[in-house]
Amino acid sequence: MHNLVLSVNAGSSSLKISLYTAQHDDNDEPVNLLLTSSISNISAPPAKFSFKSVNATKDAEPTKDAPVDSIHDHASAFEHFLDHLKREANIDREQITRICHRVVHGGDYHDPVIISDESYHHIEKLSDLAPLHNGAALSVIKACIANLPSSTSIAFFDTAFHRPMPPYIANYAINQTIARKRGLKKYGFHGLSYAFILRSVARFLNKPPDALNLIVLHLGSGASACAIRQGLSLDTSMGLTPLNGLPGATRAGAIDPSLIFHYTNKAGRITHDRKAAIQLHVTEAEDILNTKSGWKALTGTTDFGVITEKADLSNPNPDYDENPHRLAFDILVDRIMDYVGGYFLKLGGRVDALVFAGGIGERSEPLRARIGEQVKCLGFAGLDGSKNEAVDTVDGSVVDIGQGGSQERKILVCRTDEQLEMARECVLKKEFWDEPTP
Amino acid sequence: MHNLVLSVNAGSSSLKISLYTAQHDDNDEPVNLLLTSSISNISAPPAKFSFKSVNATKDAEPTKDAPVDSIHDHASAFEHFLDHLKREANIDREQITRICHRVVHGGDYHDPVIISDESYHHIEKLSDLAPLHNGAALSVIKACIANLPSSTSIAFFDTAFHRPMPPYIANYAINQTIARKRGLKKYGFHGLSYAFILRSVARFLNKPPDALNLIVLHLGSGASACAIRQGLSLDTSMGLTPLNGLPGATRAGAIDPSLIFHYTNKAGRITHDRKAAIQLHVTEAEDILNTKSGWKALTGTTDFGVITEKADLSNPNPDYDENPHRLAFDILVDRIMDYVGGYFLKLGGRVDALVFAGGIGERSEPLRARIGEQVKCLGFAGLDGSKNEAVDTVDGSVVDIGQGGSQERKILVCRTDEQLEMARECVLKKEFWDEPTP
Repeated sequence: MHNLVLSVNAGSSSLKISLYTAQHDDNDEPVNLLLTSSISNISAPPAKFSFKSVNATKDAEPTKDAPVDSIHDHASAFEHFLDHLKREANIDREQITRICHRVVHGGDYHDPVIISDESYHHIEKLSDLAPLHNGAALSVIKACIANLPSSTSIAFFDTAFHRPMPPYIANYAINQTIARKRGLKKYGFHGLSYAFILRSVARFLNKPPDALNLIVLHLGSGASACAIRQGLSLDTSMGLTPLNGLPGATRAGAIDPSLIFHYTNKAGRITHDRKAAIQLHVTEAEDILNTKSGWKALTGTTDFGVITEKADLSNPNPDYDENPHRLAFDILVDRIMDYVGGYFLKLGGRVDALVFAGGIGERSEPLRARIGEQVKCLGFAGLDGSKNEAVDTVDGSVVDIGQGGSQERKILVCRTDEQLEMARECVLKKEFWDEPTP
Repeated sequence: MHNLVLSVNAGSSSLKISLYTAQHDDNDEPVNLLLTSSISNISAPPAKFSFKSVNATKDAEPTKDAPVDSIHDHASAFEHFLDHLKREANIDREQITRICHRVVHGGDYHDPVIISDESYHHIEKLSDLAPLHNGAALSVIKACIANLPSSTSIAFFDTAFHRPMPPYIANYAINQTIARKRGLKKYGFHGLSYAFILRSVARFLNKPPDALNLIVLHLGSGASACAIRQGLSLDTSMGLTPLNGLPGATRAGAIDPSLIFHYTNKAGRITHDRKAAIQLHVTEAEDILNTKSGWKALTGTTDFGVITEKADLSNPNPDYDENPHRLAFDILVDRIMDYVGGYFLKLGGRVDALVFAGGIGERSEPLRARIGEQVKCLGFAGLDGSKNEAVDTVDGSVVDIGQGGSQERKILVCRTDEQLEMARECVLKKEFWDEPTP
């Protein structure tokens, strides 16, 4: 085996890795999954390591959540993976010729880019726009250059899918001279996921992607919504950074921007007496709104399954003071309504499908049921309850959970896969595949 | 004439005043307008003074935009009005027994409150939640206590109408212990306007207010949207402060909250190196986002009529870099779509009317035409072009501009009047009217 493609997805405290072989003879599915690995709790040691070959009997034994003391950052996590790969699956690191990196903020990059000194420094500079989000990927890229000097690293950006957004949607109502100089506009994120979903739904509905209008909900511990018009991103809920839009596991989502002036531990309170106002350390506020808010702050758990269980969803008149789980559930549904309604209108009502994706979108049957019920007034057929419950038993990346078979506005679930999207793009794009390895 | 009711509406640099007589015999219209006055440019002297009696031949001569050097703040503006009232209309200040004050932020007040030492200090404290917005009203209240010691001042809150919002809409996805302690939630504003509109539309449609579902757009130099369900505020676009939601003449509206960390002149830029990050003076950022953004920042003018004229609206493919007026127009339309779509869905599609109000909502025929066209996909009948153009020629507070006469989802224009709303409430509420003057 040569020419293996590694896809790396670095979160703030996690690393998800998939390894593929390329198969250029079948362009419909240009890559073939060999194994997956994940490392969690990187910033809360001991880190937990998992590793699973697709063909486990022949290759390595699966490992699940094994604590590893030697992992203390993203670089050491990646090195642990490479050692394990050799030891347990007998794959040399030299066999990996392409490494795809998911980078959150790509500024104005429209396409993935091969890592060079120049592009690395440009991405590093871009991370000023979202200091909390690009750091992990940059350290993995560094580790790759050190550990796999003969492979080509390619950065794939979560922002790239949204570059076609029209200026009246992407621009904020602020001074445009300053905005252009500092890059202050809506970028949007989760683009690799939206690209995967668009491609998969097009195949499922047997339509070309550029004929599709979709409202997509990528609901995970980070959550966003996207309106896709004729195969292009029209609008999305995240903005300059991933903070805006839907709330997430630890993220506040859209708030009144003025709240920042009140919501830090250091700040105490703003006073109407300007002389007494305390200068705030704003990076602390950014940290609170990204990592100490969301449904974790509301309920104490980041596990949306637990929230759903405890939310007492059959109660039509919940006491929100008594049941913070119900409050968290209903807040998420309410904010989803904001975007679904707005996007329906911006698409002029021409919507082929509402698509659920992401860990929660794919797994939370109660959340889908609730949203499916509420969107009926937009002309969506209701959900088919048994199809909605049986999503896990159906193969394939897309599952239809709507009533009837031919309704125009379908409701779908898509098992999104950002690593697969990167590997596919990498193999399909001549510029990445034909490029001689350095 | 005794028992005159004065309604005072203090903006950041303006003062609008209406004087009424009470007429308790006709509860359908409990007050009768005597005269109006306005003072603008208070913070950019010379201030301009206008004064107009309803019956100008009998009473004082109308004054329009007369520069007055002695006005340098809200208190001196109010004193100038009182002097003019005596000199030109021969009305003694002692005839004024009730003074209604529009106060922007009323925290958790559900109802208007008579000004006492206690309530004054409570309102002063509340203004910490929105330091930029309550100051003008507080100085006029102070001036009233000094100049009209025998009259009763009553504070009416722009937030009060929205108190019925459900917790899952009013609360942000943040730590609720901190949120409750510091009062950090969505309050919503323009409540006096929404109360006036609800009352007027109910009368116009001959339905009780608590049977009405409305989507209301209050579009002025400050702009907001409101979903009204069965006569109660369900959701609104402004939040903890008036900053959030729709963009305005100088206000950014909803932005990614992280933008604050990048958008001040002092801040320079945020860097990914935390040690080098500059501490920002956040009140400066708040000031920029409230008073130096919006369509003024985009186009150089606060006059939406000028923007509409220069927007080249018939061009289907505008160059937004070349035409900032079109950018400003399309940004406002886009953000309006966000709220209209979201509110339609939250109201389950049961919407009696979409209502335009406020200076721009009442006057901008092109903006109404554009929105009227775009909401057709929600089941609204289109606008009647000639009715839309002829709004100014129709008497009454509500004008129907939709096609046909009996469609369920109407499109209306309402001439909102916050001062009238306060005066009506003041006369109708026993607790304000029967209260002995101090």
